[in-house]
Amino acid sequence: MIVGKVVGSVVATRKNERLLGSKFMIVEPLKNMDNNGRIIAVDNVGAGIGETVLVALGSAARIGCAMNEAPVDAAIVGIIDNSIGL
Amino acid sequence: MIVGKVVGSVVATRKNERLLGSKFMIVEPLKNMDNNGRIIAVDNVGAGIGETVLVALGSAARIGCAMNEAPVDAAIVGIIDNSIGL
Amino acid sequence: MIVGKVVGSVVATRKNERLLGSKFMIVEPLKNMDNNGRIIAVDNVGAGIGETVLVALGSAARIGCAMNEAPVDAAIVGIIDNSIGL
Amino acid sequence: MIVGKVVGSVVATRKNERLLGSKFMIVEPLKNMDNNGRIIAVDNVGAGIGETVLVALGSAARIGCAMNEAPVDAAIVGIIDNSIGL
Amino acid sequence: MIVGKVVGSVVATRKNERLLGSKFMIVEPLKNMDNNGRIIAVDNVGAGIGETVLVALGSAARIGCAMNEAPVDAAIVGIIDNSIGL
Repeated sequence: MIVGKVVGSVVATRKNERLLGSKFMIVEPLKNMDNNGRIIAVDNVGAGIGETVLVALGSAARIGCAMNEAPVDAAIVGIIDNSIGL
Repeated sequence: MIVGKVVGSVVATRKNERLLGSKFMIVEPLKNMDNNGRIIAVDNVGAGIGETVLVALGSAARIGCAMNEAPVDAAIVGIIDNSIGL
Repeated sequence: MIVGKVVGSVVATRKNERLLGSKFMIVEPLKNMDNNGRIIAVDNVGAGIGETVLVALGSAARIGCAMNEAPVDAAIVGIIDNSIGL
Repeated sequence: MIVGKVVGSVVATRKNERLLGSKFMIVEPLKNMDNNGRIIAVDNVGAGIGETVLVALGSAARIGCAMNEAPVDAAIVGIIDNSIGL
Repeated sequence: MIVGKVVGSVVATRKNERLLGSKFMIVEPLKNMDNNGRIIAVDNVGAGIGETVLVALGSAARIGCAMNEAPVDAAIVGIIDNSIGL
């Protein structure tokens, strides 16, 4: 997983029907994380813009959020409220 | 997922038979996205050149687009029509 | 897998319920490893800050740690106590 | 998927038995593709050196080429014969 | 897959029990391969330090080496003994 900040959201009216009802947030990974840039992640925990979140990537996002059949490869799965060494 | 712009398409007459009927679009990720360059994505929503799209990567593309047995690792799954902070 | 050093941890009170009880460690990959930066990994072996660990990524983390249905894409699966050429 | 050029091949006499009969091609991704360098891909369509090909990565290669139990993470799945904007 | 050179090994006495008996080799990918650095790969073919090997990544390593339930995301699956254009 990586930690990032929610910096926005995108809306797609025309989309794969298995994505109906999903909210797509733009996550900017923290600078020292293993990532090259922003990710669009489905929100699984009710995260808002400005919050620091935990993002799961790959099949973990899809299966871990019970969206097994949806085209989802990233999901916000936690809101960080404490940390050591971040 | 990442957001990118459809900038072209490729045609492969000789191909894996499970790809018959698929349309392969060239997607250029937006500059600040987590990607090193262009992706060839199967079109799942009727996207055209110049449109800004949502792309699912990995097994999410294959399974989320009901192409479970096809050699597909990227799919256009939405057309972006609104955004905050993109 | 990659080898890294545990440099901290994060806490998320609000999170996906399948992550309840998991401990999230911040792992800094060794400089010459195939990674761009830090990873948040679930601890599967009781690793502490400062230890050099083996981290499995992707579906291997989820399935290999018997967390098949959890949104986990990285796990600490060993503590390195000897090496040649690291 | 990515598009690349077949630039060579490798032979491994001693190998995992599930790879028996597979042909391993070296593919150099086109410069603007989402890749850091060359990939070794199993040939699924009879591609030759110098041809421009479509390569599927990850589980898509394995499952999409009906090699579900083989250690294959990349496969040539089409030969590009036409394109717009490549 | 990628091609690399075995440059060392690591030992983890305390580890996930599904890794018991596995040998962890350090593989340095060849310079022009699609990788940012070293990988720790399970040895599936009896590779030694200094040998040039074929490495499968992701679920292909786990499933292709019949370690379906182990936290393994990279495996040495062949020893390169001949090549064109490498």
